[in-house]
Amino acid sequence: MDISALTRTINDQLALLSYGDQPTSLYEPIRYIMALGGKRIRPLLTLLGAQLFTDDLTPVLKPALATEVFHNFTLLHDDLMDQAPLRRGQATVHEKWNPNVAILSGDVMLVRAYELFFDVPAALLPTVLRRFSQTAAEVCEGQQWDMNFEIDSEVSIAQYLDMIRLKTAVLLGFALELGALLGGAPASEADQLRQFGTAIGIAFQLRDDLLDVYGDAATFGKRVGGDIVSDKKTFLLLTAQAQASAAQQAVLQQHIGQPVFDAERKVQAVTAVYDELNIRAQTEALINEYFEAALAHLEQVAVLAARKEPLHRLALQLMERES
Amino acid sequence: MDISALTRTINDQLALLSYGDQPTSLYEPIRYIMALGGKRIRPLLTLLGAQLFTDDLTPVLKPALATEVFHNFTLLHDDLMDQAPLRRGQATVHEKWNPNVAILSGDVMLVRAYELFFDVPAALLPTVLRRFSQTAAEVCEGQQWDMNFEIDSEVSIAQYLDMIRLKTAVLLGFALELGALLGGAPASEADQLRQFGTAIGIAFQLRDDLLDVYGDAATFGKRVGGDIVSDKKTFLLLTAQAQASAAQQAVLQQHIGQPVFDAERKVQAVTAVYDELNIRAQTEALINEYFEAALAHLEQVAVLAARKEPLHRLALQLMERES
Repeated sequence: MDISALTRTINDQLALLSYGDQPTSLYEPIRYIMALGGKRIRPLLTLLGAQLFTDDLTPVLKPALATEVFHNFTLLHDDLMDQAPLRRGQATVHEKWNPNVAILSGDVMLVRAYELFFDVPAALLPTVLRRFSQTAAEVCEGQQWDMNFEIDSEVSIAQYLDMIRLKTAVLLGFALELGALLGGAPASEADQLRQFGTAIGIAFQLRDDLLDVYGDAATFGKRVGGDIVSDKKTFLLLTAQAQASAAQQAVLQQHIGQPVFDAERKVQAVTAVYDELNIRAQTEALINEYFEAALAHLEQVAVLAARKEPLHRLALQLMERES
Repeated sequence: MDISALTRTINDQLALLSYGDQPTSLYEPIRYIMALGGKRIRPLLTLLGAQLFTDDLTPVLKPALATEVFHNFTLLHDDLMDQAPLRRGQATVHEKWNPNVAILSGDVMLVRAYELFFDVPAALLPTVLRRFSQTAAEVCEGQQWDMNFEIDSEVSIAQYLDMIRLKTAVLLGFALELGALLGGAPASEADQLRQFGTAIGIAFQLRDDLLDVYGDAATFGKRVGGDIVSDKKTFLLLTAQAQASAAQQAVLQQHIGQPVFDAERKVQAVTAVYDELNIRAQTEALINEYFEAALAHLEQVAVLAARKEPLHRLALQLMERES
């Protein structure tokens, strides 16, 4: 199946999931956030990972959905922690209901995510659950680092890259590894795919950082410069701070971390420093490095190149590149 | 092993658990809440349940701890939702750290609870995990009903009993069922023990409601009348409201749900209505009914009566009864 057919299958299967009935205040928010949509990248990666090794995706479907339910659980709790008012243009759960509903609905989503694994064949179940649990804990660690970095004055680029690896990339890696394992791949191949997915995930997040500053507002769908306005310590800002001259440091300090400011002027001034330091090209180079490393892992997977085509194409799509 | 030896074993094993290291702001709160103590009833029930059927508790220990880690996860999130300042006389996690730390540390505790099951023999693992997940979701449902009841004007006694069954009792039932399954019991015996534990759990919670009003402040360890002060819809209040004369209704309405009040007068007035309606004896009768039903389930378990002695004794201890 190609990517759009697989995505349809995933959405059809998601629509069939039942999370629970009563009390409605517990289960309605789960149906709400799951219905907000999204690209369903994680279950797609699981199915594409499995398709490398098998043509029978039936037993892979339910576990594939687990990664999507888990991902939406993290969005639900993260939105509460970040006090975000909107998610995909709609009110977040803690806004539409209240914070307590967001906590408890999220908790039960995590339980439901686990449940989607329990039909996995007995021989694979412990491995799959151990890897999922490790990944889930790492995603929590990433979110905690992200919150810590808002307060920490000193954050290194290495720390930042490790944070996005944990918060975003390891789940993409696990989604692929899961598909490979369920498709019957040996552990070594599953691990190559995990590394492919993790590297793609880091590249994807760096690209997100880049688009926040250099993206087209219309296609990016967010306000350009949002990270700059909120003093977010992204790869761009940390690199600029590490490389700035005394004069450039002064400009950055004049704008970053100030309680009162003109947003437009702030974005302009910080972007000007980025431009002087060639931050865009440096970020693109690092994205490319992770992307190439990802492809090298995919290359290592011992199946016919033709079978890798859909996965290769999805990776390119995620980077919005032609080749 | 007797109850005190088992409790020591549980505490020794809990002290050996490692939840994670970095970031410390994620893992320190887990070590903190787990170190606050408690009677470790749930793992104790698991070990006592297993001991009915086996003398080798070694493979039961880790899964037994899962119920304690899960229980403390629910306390951590419930304290945040209830905005409770204290837990076992110490600052709650959201007070000592902050609400976001409480959310995220709790999330990772739920993951760690699952992980403690993964060494369960492959033949039992899916059953154990399905039953645990069902129980975990039910506990969340119970907490949501409890929060709903704070706002709902009409709560029936049946709804209240179902709420405490979900919020408190099913986890005690699962703890026993888990022990029985791991001890090698057939499903029918494990289910008898589940029902025994669930009935004990409901009796235990009703006793807690009773002690809030009629307990000795020194031994109960909480302020007498706390439930009355906070308008908590307990079995006592709901029964009184269902049976009150017009004059007694008026007294209850004069005190319950008022924004401003004298706490001592409120407790006195509501307790006086309880006394007139004989609520204490009615509650004791219901506790006894659940307790007797529990013992009947224990009776049904096909092992020698002598093996049931420690479990029988623990049940009596939980009711603080001699026999």
